[in-house]
Amino acid sequence: MASNSFGRHLRFTTFGESHGPAIGCVVDGVPAGVPLCEADIQPYLDRRRPGQSKHTTQRQEADQVRIVSGVFEGVTTGTPVGLLIDNTDQRSKDYGEIARQFRPGHADFTYQAKYGLRDYRGGGRSSARETAMRVAAGGVARQILKTALGDQMWIRGALVQMGARKINRAAWDWDQVERNPFFCPDAETAALYDAELSAIRKEGSSIGAVIEVVAHGMPAGLGDPIYNKLDSDLAAAMMSINAVKGVEIGDGFEAACLRGEDNADEIQPGNDGAPLFLSNHAGGILGGISTGQDIVVRFAVKPTSSLLIETNSINVAGEAVKVRTKGRHDPCVGIRAVPVGEAMMALVLADLLLAGRASKI
Amino acid sequence: MASNSFGRHLRFTTFGESHGPAIGCVVDGVPAGVPLCEADIQPYLDRRRPGQSKHTTQRQEADQVRIVSGVFEGVTTGTPVGLLIDNTDQRSKDYGEIARQFRPGHADFTYQAKYGLRDYRGGGRSSARETAMRVAAGGVARQILKTALGDQMWIRGALVQMGARKINRAAWDWDQVERNPFFCPDAETAALYDAELSAIRKEGSSIGAVIEVVAHGMPAGLGDPIYNKLDSDLAAAMMSINAVKGVEIGDGFEAACLRGEDNADEIQPGNDGAPLFLSNHAGGILGGISTGQDIVVRFAVKPTSSLLIETNSINVAGEAVKVRTKGRHDPCVGIRAVPVGEAMMALVLADLLLAGRASKI
Amino acid sequence: MASNSFGRHLRFTTFGESHGPAIGCVVDGVPAGVPLCEADIQPYLDRRRPGQSKHTTQRQEADQVRIVSGVFEGVTTGTPVGLLIDNTDQRSKDYGEIARQFRPGHADFTYQAKYGLRDYRGGGRSSARETAMRVAAGGVARQILKTALGDQMWIRGALVQMGARKINRAAWDWDQVERNPFFCPDAETAALYDAELSAIRKEGSSIGAVIEVVAHGMPAGLGDPIYNKLDSDLAAAMMSINAVKGVEIGDGFEAACLRGEDNADEIQPGNDGAPLFLSNHAGGILGGISTGQDIVVRFAVKPTSSLLIETNSINVAGEAVKVRTKGRHDPCVGIRAVPVGEAMMALVLADLLLAGRASKI
Amino acid sequence: MASNSFGRHLRFTTFGESHGPAIGCVVDGVPAGVPLCEADIQPYLDRRRPGQSKHTTQRQEADQVRIVSGVFEGVTTGTPVGLLIDNTDQRSKDYGEIARQFRPGHADFTYQAKYGLRDYRGGGRSSARETAMRVAAGGVARQILKTALGDQMWIRGALVQMGARKINRAAWDWDQVERNPFFCPDAETAALYDAELSAIRKEGSSIGAVIEVVAHGMPAGLGDPIYNKLDSDLAAAMMSINAVKGVEIGDGFEAACLRGEDNADEIQPGNDGAPLFLSNHAGGILGGISTGQDIVVRFAVKPTSSLLIETNSINVAGEAVKVRTKGRHDPCVGIRAVPVGEAMMALVLADLLLAGRASKI
Repeated sequence: MASNSFGRHLRFTTFGESHGPAIGCVVDGVPAGVPLCEADIQPYLDRRRPGQSKHTTQRQEADQVRIVSGVFEGVTTGTPVGLLIDNTDQRSKDYGEIARQFRPGHADFTYQAKYGLRDYRGGGRSSARETAMRVAAGGVARQILKTALGDQMWIRGALVQMGARKINRAAWDWDQVERNPFFCPDAETAALYDAELSAIRKEGSSIGAVIEVVAHGMPAGLGDPIYNKLDSDLAAAMMSINAVKGVEIGDGFEAACLRGEDNADEIQPGNDGAPLFLSNHAGGILGGISTGQDIVVRFAVKPTSSLLIETNSINVAGEAVKVRTKGRHDPCVGIRAVPVGEAMMALVLADLLLAGRASKI
Repeated sequence: MASNSFGRHLRFTTFGESHGPAIGCVVDGVPAGVPLCEADIQPYLDRRRPGQSKHTTQRQEADQVRIVSGVFEGVTTGTPVGLLIDNTDQRSKDYGEIARQFRPGHADFTYQAKYGLRDYRGGGRSSARETAMRVAAGGVARQILKTALGDQMWIRGALVQMGARKINRAAWDWDQVERNPFFCPDAETAALYDAELSAIRKEGSSIGAVIEVVAHGMPAGLGDPIYNKLDSDLAAAMMSINAVKGVEIGDGFEAACLRGEDNADEIQPGNDGAPLFLSNHAGGILGGISTGQDIVVRFAVKPTSSLLIETNSINVAGEAVKVRTKGRHDPCVGIRAVPVGEAMMALVLADLLLAGRASKI
Repeated sequence: MASNSFGRHLRFTTFGESHGPAIGCVVDGVPAGVPLCEADIQPYLDRRRPGQSKHTTQRQEADQVRIVSGVFEGVTTGTPVGLLIDNTDQRSKDYGEIARQFRPGHADFTYQAKYGLRDYRGGGRSSARETAMRVAAGGVARQILKTALGDQMWIRGALVQMGARKINRAAWDWDQVERNPFFCPDAETAALYDAELSAIRKEGSSIGAVIEVVAHGMPAGLGDPIYNKLDSDLAAAMMSINAVKGVEIGDGFEAACLRGEDNADEIQPGNDGAPLFLSNHAGGILGGISTGQDIVVRFAVKPTSSLLIETNSINVAGEAVKVRTKGRHDPCVGIRAVPVGEAMMALVLADLLLAGRASKI
Repeated sequence: MASNSFGRHLRFTTFGESHGPAIGCVVDGVPAGVPLCEADIQPYLDRRRPGQSKHTTQRQEADQVRIVSGVFEGVTTGTPVGLLIDNTDQRSKDYGEIARQFRPGHADFTYQAKYGLRDYRGGGRSSARETAMRVAAGGVARQILKTALGDQMWIRGALVQMGARKINRAAWDWDQVERNPFFCPDAETAALYDAELSAIRKEGSSIGAVIEVVAHGMPAGLGDPIYNKLDSDLAAAMMSINAVKGVEIGDGFEAACLRGEDNADEIQPGNDGAPLFLSNHAGGILGGISTGQDIVVRFAVKPTSSLLIETNSINVAGEAVKVRTKGRHDPCVGIRAVPVGEAMMALVLADLLLAGRASKI
């Protein structure tokens, strides 16, 4: 069933496989009059691009995006924005055993079970390569948000845990995020990650991570109850990212431990007439609708299932096999999930912003 | 924007407010030929019904469901199943300060911000009363699943944490779930919850919880990549339940701590030709598609924001006020969220089962 | 597959069968702040109500609508508007041969072919009874349009042909529409219809008709290219009405006969700065978007297939049978299709009006 | 609002403008295992391609389609099929007055009114160039239908009227359709069209047409009541094609003239157990569901609004202007609408075929 689109008012549709000639995306529902060019999108792709440090896959992709429709004389026209990226480093090698084996923890088995066949080249459609188009579409969403809300808004993401090691939140510095290969806001912890991940990579293993994404400067009122609540849409968005196993808003699972009076974000009259919240346990969302505070989402990424370490599995014929994946892979896919999470945040918020234009008559 | 529907092939739409005359639901996309009567649905509503123990709200609702369409001679006809429940204990009292105050942690403020007005009677549409219709719709979904998959399938939920106290998973006994007012599978911990929640209620406070829902007997192949992955749909479904702040699949946030070889669920050839998984860290989902193992979801519920304990807030005019909520409420909304979570699991699975009927030509 | 909803931003979902206990509708996506009460809807239902003249079915239904949700203190709240109408004259008689026979020209055979069973009581879901809920939903849509656009807008329908006899368009008088049982704007032709339809009814036969619906006072810019064009949505809306076999916009099929210079509606600068169109061959729609002129739609209704005159058919067992339908029926279903067509026009326009709120940034 | 997609289970999304670098399409929901290559699609594009006779626009486009995703080793994989066609003959000339004038009968004015700006190059998105992607997507839909239903099914279209002149239906010969530049099934009338259209073209004028599309070999049971009826979906599909002003099914508007006993398609037991219909006034659809007979749709196309003959209009500043369009255009856009109508028929049928896979449990 058609399922490669996300969003309702602003809806994007992606296509393309890891080792096909190109990947692409259609962003539909973009209002007319939004300034947009490739340079508005490319920086986000560059952050997600592989091969930029020893800690990510060595596949080399320029990831140069082309806008092929929907823009005229520097602004959007209201028609769908078509985006294309050529695949340039898909290796047409012999795929060997991968074609017949199911990697434990990977989608190999489930695609075969669902469809009766699969494109095994580089993981086909199940590859994280698809997330490049999310990042591109997210660039369009950011332009919508900026144009509508002004430059004070921002959406940023950070890696806040790798393996069992969490960052020191007291040391949080957004500027640090761009200064280490982990998108980590805590420089000291980033240095520890560097050593730890180097060791893991050398062992042919992999490790999980937790990502936090924050949207600042959003108005109160975003989110449509009951089944397109802001938090519900965010949960769907983040959980659809490869390898994500958990999503939480604000205090998230910690909220289960709290008593009501500790969880309730008290309110005071603000100087500007707007409410002044004294805390943000809610992560900026109440009843599925934004409060105007920072919107805070975290998601957990499992360790990559492509391993040099041998595991037990079966092949297409149902026979027992030993599996080792020799190809290029990310020892911690959570790192490159940071720009992807930001993009999904932008896409959800732009969709709900536009959808909400008619909440009052 | 229209947002009170969930699902694509099987889509249900709810309507109704906490203190209106009735609540209702339309379940559209039910195949013809599914046995269905009120008695197939009512037991699930009875489990969610308020007023059954001292630990839930004292509002008295019979929650008798009526099927008004879509069934003929005991089976569904392929036309939409209309379900209605009359509200019988909505108190037409003076709502007093609630009409003008924003309870901290509650949707009062955000509904007002979004719509410029709100139905403040019992929380209006933002009340958990709406979840009764999810449970009713879930009853229909269960009949679809049972008819398609046979009686060996089941979907069950349990409360696995209240406040900071987690159950002893070694003591898990599904039979216990129906024997205590907490839907707790661990009898000893349930006894502790009883004492703890009594104290919390007397103090006029509330507490959060974590719920686990398991679906057994599901085939491999459910879930549509990329944006209607099984886990993505489940995340949206669970996060749309009132007060939920986090969702995780299988090992969830713990997966971030694991190394690849520990997270990978190894596979052996099974006796029946089907794969035999040696563990289930993935919670039955890989690449957004079911593996055939048990599907395992957990979600965190924050403490109720209606408190007898006074908190600081503002009113509609933006003035500082002290808020205390004297009405009936659940000191731990997580308890009654158990049957709601089960229902959402059933609805997602039935939708994807039907949607998947055409994944192979 | 779920298919009982119409619209995207404003979406309504109907349920209920001809001889079930009730029919109902959920109107989702109504903005907050629209004045709405039963009296805003009932007049439209009263126009569609059966049994008002000898020319329509003698089934007696009060068709009293109840609003059960979505309205508080006289205005909509942004939550779904639930509407219910009890069926009061469904006869629980012996349905006899109807249960097993397929009436030629009727949905009996196709429902059986599709679903393997059917609710044969009064036509079940395929009965025009469902259209009562469209008219009710249309009443909500009219309130949205009036509130947004002001009282100068109107939507009116008229029967412009019955059998081969067309009205005299030069004699068109909207006031006449409410003064004869045919919704005919030409009094003289209405008198002829009266005689003709009486004869047809006595013979146990039926006849087709053509309906025209006009929307006045709509702004330019309604309609979303490419696949939710205003004309495309109107075509879907009208063709979904029972017994409709053709839909046209403006000059419609006559446009095929025209040369470009005769079809092109020339434009002059208007006194108010708005364009002044010198003709309206286009029916108020160009490129799928409204021009600001009157929006003009016509649709053809086939003759009722329930006949006292005997026809050849088969039964569920595939055996040859002779079919005569003795029950109550409309000899010209086109008459009561007039308010239904108006309602669908209102619903499409309100949906696109709201959807279009975000076409410019 | 996102509106460049069509279909539910099988959903395609198009993008691209007349004079942009490329046009494209994503076909989502294609089941795995359908044989598909460019050669399955190209012949349909070749039929729609411009510049093949003096009677269509002289724009030269190779219209070579590339499949960039969703196919592996000759069959579909269940992932979205991405299709691209480069624009090669978009002239980067000075667009002159077109940039500021509104052609009467054209979408120039309405796009400007809706979006506040427009891509005026060759009509931008409102150009019939977009229909190339419908034809390409239709080629995919045909492969689905053939694989599911076998080779005895076919979908064919024909031009049955140009201007006021209708074909002689007694002379209908499908083979003739490919032998004249009008897709006309009646050779004698085609010869008359040739002379007439040559004269019209020389005068700088244009003319309308009527197209008929027939689907043969479809099973009974296609179509989802109430709002995705087969006829409702077909009406939306055909009316979304550029310049279409009317759609009818079976007898269409003529059905309004009929009496019930003349319109009812009587049924006899067939030799093979299937029902044998004695006529097909219904055009193969009853109650919105296919009967198993030929599905017959006709649609009316207005004359092209790009004319060498001068007409009165206004420009973007609201000033009176005289408009003449000197560029390349089709004097009868109805001709090339034939393969487009066939494609939309195929897309609707494939969507409903897949959607209907779960109509019975």
